[in-house]
Amino acid sequence: MPSYTAPVKDMQFILHDVLKITSQDVPGYSELEADFTSAILEEAGKLASSVLAPLNQVGDTEGCYMENGVVRTPTGFKAAFDQVREGGWPGLDMPEQYGGQGMPYVIGTAVGEFFSAANQAFTMYQGLTHGAASAILAHGTEQQKDTYLPKMVSCDWTGTMNLTEPHCGTDLGMMRTKAEPQDDGSYSITGQKIFISAGEHDMADNIIHLVLAKIPGGPEGIKGVSLFIVPKFLVNEDGSLGARNGVTCGKIEEKMGIHGNSTCVMNYDGATGYLLGAEHKGMRAMFTMMNEARIGVGMQGLAQADVAYQNALDYAKDRLQGRDVTGTKNPDGPADPLIVHPDIRRSLMDQKSFAEGARAFMLWGAYLIDRAHRNTDADADGLISLMTPVIKGFLTDEGFDMTILAQQVYGGHGYIEEWGMSQYARDARIAMIYEGANGVQALDLVGRKLAQDGGKHVMAFFDLVKTFLKDNEGNEALKADFLDPLKAASKDLQAAGMFFMQNGMKNPNAALAGSYDFMHLFGHVCLGLMWAEMAKAAHAALEAGTQDEAFYRTKVATGRYYMARRLPATALHLARINSGADTVMELEAANF
Amino acid sequence: MPSYTAPVKDMQFILHDVLKITSQDVPGYSELEADFTSAILEEAGKLASSVLAPLNQVGDTEGCYMENGVVRTPTGFKAAFDQVREGGWPGLDMPEQYGGQGMPYVIGTAVGEFFSAANQAFTMYQGLTHGAASAILAHGTEQQKDTYLPKMVSCDWTGTMNLTEPHCGTDLGMMRTKAEPQDDGSYSITGQKIFISAGEHDMADNIIHLVLAKIPGGPEGIKGVSLFIVPKFLVNEDGSLGARNGVTCGKIEEKMGIHGNSTCVMNYDGATGYLLGAEHKGMRAMFTMMNEARIGVGMQGLAQADVAYQNALDYAKDRLQGRDVTGTKNPDGPADPLIVHPDIRRSLMDQKSFAEGARAFMLWGAYLIDRAHRNTDADADGLISLMTPVIKGFLTDEGFDMTILAQQVYGGHGYIEEWGMSQYARDARIAMIYEGANGVQALDLVGRKLAQDGGKHVMAFFDLVKTFLKDNEGNEALKADFLDPLKAASKDLQAAGMFFMQNGMKNPNAALAGSYDFMHLFGHVCLGLMWAEMAKAAHAALEAGTQDEAFYRTKVATGRYYMARRLPATALHLARINSGADTVMELEAANF
Repeated sequence: MPSYTAPVKDMQFILHDVLKITSQDVPGYSELEADFTSAILEEAGKLASSVLAPLNQVGDTEGCYMENGVVRTPTGFKAAFDQVREGGWPGLDMPEQYGGQGMPYVIGTAVGEFFSAANQAFTMYQGLTHGAASAILAHGTEQQKDTYLPKMVSCDWTGTMNLTEPHCGTDLGMMRTKAEPQDDGSYSITGQKIFISAGEHDMADNIIHLVLAKIPGGPEGIKGVSLFIVPKFLVNEDGSLGARNGVTCGKIEEKMGIHGNSTCVMNYDGATGYLLGAEHKGMRAMFTMMNEARIGVGMQGLAQADVAYQNALDYAKDRLQGRDVTGTKNPDGPADPLIVHPDIRRSLMDQKSFAEGARAFMLWGAYLIDRAHRNTDADADGLISLMTPVIKGFLTDEGFDMTILAQQVYGGHGYIEEWGMSQYARDARIAMIYEGANGVQALDLVGRKLAQDGGKHVMAFFDLVKTFLKDNEGNEALKADFLDPLKAASKDLQAAGMFFMQNGMKNPNAALAGSYDFMHLFGHVCLGLMWAEMAKAAHAALEAGTQDEAFYRTKVATGRYYMARRLPATALHLARINSGADTVMELEAANF
Repeated sequence: MPSYTAPVKDMQFILHDVLKITSQDVPGYSELEADFTSAILEEAGKLASSVLAPLNQVGDTEGCYMENGVVRTPTGFKAAFDQVREGGWPGLDMPEQYGGQGMPYVIGTAVGEFFSAANQAFTMYQGLTHGAASAILAHGTEQQKDTYLPKMVSCDWTGTMNLTEPHCGTDLGMMRTKAEPQDDGSYSITGQKIFISAGEHDMADNIIHLVLAKIPGGPEGIKGVSLFIVPKFLVNEDGSLGARNGVTCGKIEEKMGIHGNSTCVMNYDGATGYLLGAEHKGMRAMFTMMNEARIGVGMQGLAQADVAYQNALDYAKDRLQGRDVTGTKNPDGPADPLIVHPDIRRSLMDQKSFAEGARAFMLWGAYLIDRAHRNTDADADGLISLMTPVIKGFLTDEGFDMTILAQQVYGGHGYIEEWGMSQYARDARIAMIYEGANGVQALDLVGRKLAQDGGKHVMAFFDLVKTFLKDNEGNEALKADFLDPLKAASKDLQAAGMFFMQNGMKNPNAALAGSYDFMHLFGHVCLGLMWAEMAKAAHAALEAGTQDEAFYRTKVATGRYYMARRLPATALHLARINSGADTVMELEAANF
C-alpha cells in the first residue's frame, strides 16, 4: 500500500533558510519562528500521513454514490473530516473574527500541500469551502459574513463554486442559469450547473453554493453575470437551519479519478439566492475565489508529484532487479536495487528536482499573496496575478508528468490499481483541467497578464532575476551551475516576450500560438530561480557550519540536476514560439 | 460516444506514394497493387469502425471477470472475435501452409493499426496469438507446427506469453518457475506467472501458453531459461482436445486500463509442457516473439493517439466556445468552434503530425521486417533490430502524451468516463510498460543495439539520412522546411552518439544516463525523415497534377509543423545527454 510522509524539513528549509519569513516585514510573519512552524507542520503532517493518506485508496475504490437520494462519501471520510475540523485546520489562515486562527496564507499553503498529497479528493471538500469563504469575506455584506463565515471557517458547512453549464465552461458569457429578482430582495435561481466538486455529500450540515447566474434584462454575455449565495438549507435569522432550498444533485459523474470527491450535476429549480457583491459584477467576485483556487490547483500538481515520488523512491530502493553496470552493489542479494540504474535515477531526479523546486515556487507565491493582502502591496499583487496562470498551468502539467514517471518506476505493478500509482496519475490529471484548463491559463498569461499595467509586472519579474544574478555574481559556488544557466533561461524568456511584442500586434495569433510554450518557459525560469535561491541558502548553511551537511549538499546536487537537465527546455520552448503562427494556423478546419 | 474511422487514405499514401511498395523487390510486394490494398484496408476499416470500436467502452466498463471459475470477457467480445476469425484476419500475414493468406507483414501491420485503434484490449487477444504462433513457426518442430499453428493462425486457439513472476519482470534470470523433465520427453511445469495478458478467457477452445521456466541443474541466471508450450487442454494425436492441463488462472488483475483484456495470474501446478527450441535457449526463442510484440506495442501507441485525435478533432469542430481573436468565424452561432483558437490548433497539430509521422515510421519498419524475412536481408534485419526499441519506446511515450492532449481538448468532459477520452489515455498507458518498460528499451538501444555488429546499423541509418539529403539537395520546395531541419536534427543524433563513444567507455553511466533522451532523439529524427519523405512524395504528386490537391497540400503543411515545432526537441535531448552522468549519479541512495 502506498504511503505518505510530510516533507516537513524541506518545508522548513524553504520557509526559514530561503524565504527567511521571520525577517520579512509582513504582518504576522514575525511570529512564525522555526519552532512554531515546525510544531504546526509536524502536527499537520501526522494527520496527513496517519488519517488522510490511508483513506486515499478507499476513496478511489468506493467513490461517492447516491443512496436513496443522499450522496454518500466513502467509508471513513466523515470521521476524518471531523478530525480535520476538530484540529481547527480549515480556519488556520482565516480571520480570528470568524473563528479562524488568523495565520498567514503561507502557512495555510504549506499545510494544504500535505493534505492534498495525502488525499486530494478528500482535501477538496475543505479547499472549496476555503475558496467560497474567501469570496464571501471579500465581497459579502456584514450580515452575509456573520451568517456564513463562522460555520464555513470551521467547515461545519462546506462551500462550492458553480460556473460550468453543459454548453459552456470557458465561455461563461453563454450561461443560461437565470436569477429572477424577488420582492424580498432575494433572487430565484433556475438552471443547471455541471462538474460541481463537493456539490452534495454527507459530511456537513449545510452546503453554501456560490452560483453564477444572469439577471434577466442585464447586459449581454459575461458582463451580465452575477454571483449568488445559494445555501442548501436556508438559514434562519438566529443562525439555525431552515427550509430545504430548491437545489438538488441530479447525478454524480463517473470520472477518471478523484473518485472520493462528489462531482455533481446541480439542478437549481427556483432556489433562493442572495446576491454576493454587485449586480452584473459576478465575474469579479468569482475571480477572488478562482485565483485562490488556481493557486491551490497548482499545489495539487506538486502534491501528487511528491507523494508519487516518495513511493517510487521506496520502490526503487526495495525492488531488486538487474545489476549495476559499474559493479554489483548488493552482492548478497539476487540483484541490485532499481536505484542503482542510471535511467531510474534520471526519473527519480526529474521528480525530486521538480517537487522541491515547485514547493519553493508555491511558497514564494503564497508569500507574495500575504504581501499583497497584509501589506496591501500592489506590486506583490501584480506579480502574483502574473504568476497565477504559471503556477496553475506549469505545476499541474509537470506534476502530472511526474506521476507518470513515478508510476513507470513500478513497471507492470504501476499499472495495477492495488499498488496505488495509477491513482496518483488519475487524480493529478484533473488539475490540468479544472479551474480553467491549462490552455486557458496560457491564454490568460499571454493575452492578458503580460500586458497588464503596461507590462509592469513581467518587467518586475525580470528585474528580480537580474538583481539576483547581480547580487550573487561574485559567488563562485553558484556561478557555473546556477547563475549561468539561470541567465540563459531568463534570456530565452525575454526573447519570447520580445517575439510576442514584435509580432503579436499585427497578428495576435503569432503570440497565442506560442502561449502554451511561453507558460512552460516561464515556469522553468521560475523553478530555475527557485533552485538558484535554494542553492544559495544551502551553500550559506554549509559555510556557516551545519550538523546536517548531507541535507544541504543534497539540495545543491538536486538543484544542479534541475539546472543541467530540466532548465534547458527553455530553448525548445523559445524555438517553438519563434516559429510563429504560420504552421499552426495554416490548415483550413476542413483539411485537418 | 467516441468513434473511429480507419485512415485508409493515409495508409494508402504511405504504402504507394512514399514506400512505393509494388516497385520494391520484396517477394509478395508486386501483388500489392493500390486497388488490392485499398480493398483490404477498406474491409478491415469497416470491421474496426462498426464492430470493434463500438465494443471499446463496453470492454472498459464491464471488464473481464470470474464467474464460477470461468473467466468471462465483456458482452459482445465473443461474437466480435468470431467475426474477426470468419474474416480470416488473424492469418492475413501467416503462411498459407497453416491456413494463412501469406501476405507481407506490412499489410498485417496496416490492418493491425486499425484494429488496435478501434479496440486495443480486444485486439490483444489476436495480437498475442500472432506472436506466439510466430515463435512456434520459428522454433517449433514440424510436429509442433502441425499441431498448433493451423488452430492458432485461425485464432480458434489463442496464445499467450508468460515471462514475469512476482519478484522479477525485467530481470528474468531470477525466475523460479521450474520445468522437470518427464520420461515421455515432456516437462512438468510448476510456478507462478503474473501479468499474463489474455491468460484465460471464454473466446477460444484452447489457449496455448508459451512459458519461460528453468530446467533444474541448468546454468544459473538467464542462460538457464527454456521456453515451453503449455496448452490449456492437452492435444490428442488426432488433433482433438484431451485432458485439462494443470494451469489455472488464479486472479484477474484490476488495472488502470485495457479492462477488456484479462490480465491473469497464472498458476502452473505440474502442468505438462513441451520444450520449444533448444534447452536453455528460451530467451532466444522468446525474443522472436518479443521483437514482434515490441513493434506491435509501438503500433498501439500510434493507434491510441490516432483514435484520440480523431475524436478531439470532431469535438474541436463541434464545440462552440469563445471567439476567434482575429474575427468571428461563426457569426450566426453563440460562439466559434474550438478549432479557431491557436492553442487548440497547436494541440491538434501536435497530435496529427505525430500520428501521421508515426504511421509512416511503423510501415517503414514493417517493410524492413519483410525485407529481412522475405529477402533474408541481413542489413534490413540489423536496421529493424536497431529500430525496435525506438519504435516501442518513442511511439508509446509520445502516443500516450497525445492521448492526454486529445483528452485536454474536451475540457472537463475529457475527465468524465462517458466521453471515452479517459479510456484512450488509460489504455495507451500500458504500452509504455509492457513488453519491456521504456527505460529498458532505452537501455537495449544504447547498451546493446548501438554497438551491435560494430555499430554498422546505426551507421547505415545515418547513411540513409545523408543519402536522402544529398539526393534531394536541389529540391527547393523541401530545402528550408524539411531538409535543413532534418540535417540539424540528424547532427544532434550524431553528436549524441559521439558523446557516448567518447564517454561511455570509461564510464558506462555516462551513456546510460542519456539513454532515454537518446531514444527520444532518435525517434524524432526518424519522424523527421518520414516527414521529409512524405513531403517529397506529396510535392511530387502535386507537381504531377492531382485531383486531390487539398490532401497533398495538407500533408506538406502537417510536415512543416512537425519540422518547425516538434523536431527541435532533438537539441534539448542532446543538451541533456551532454550533461553526462554526474548530476544523475551524484546522490547516495540514502540521500534521495
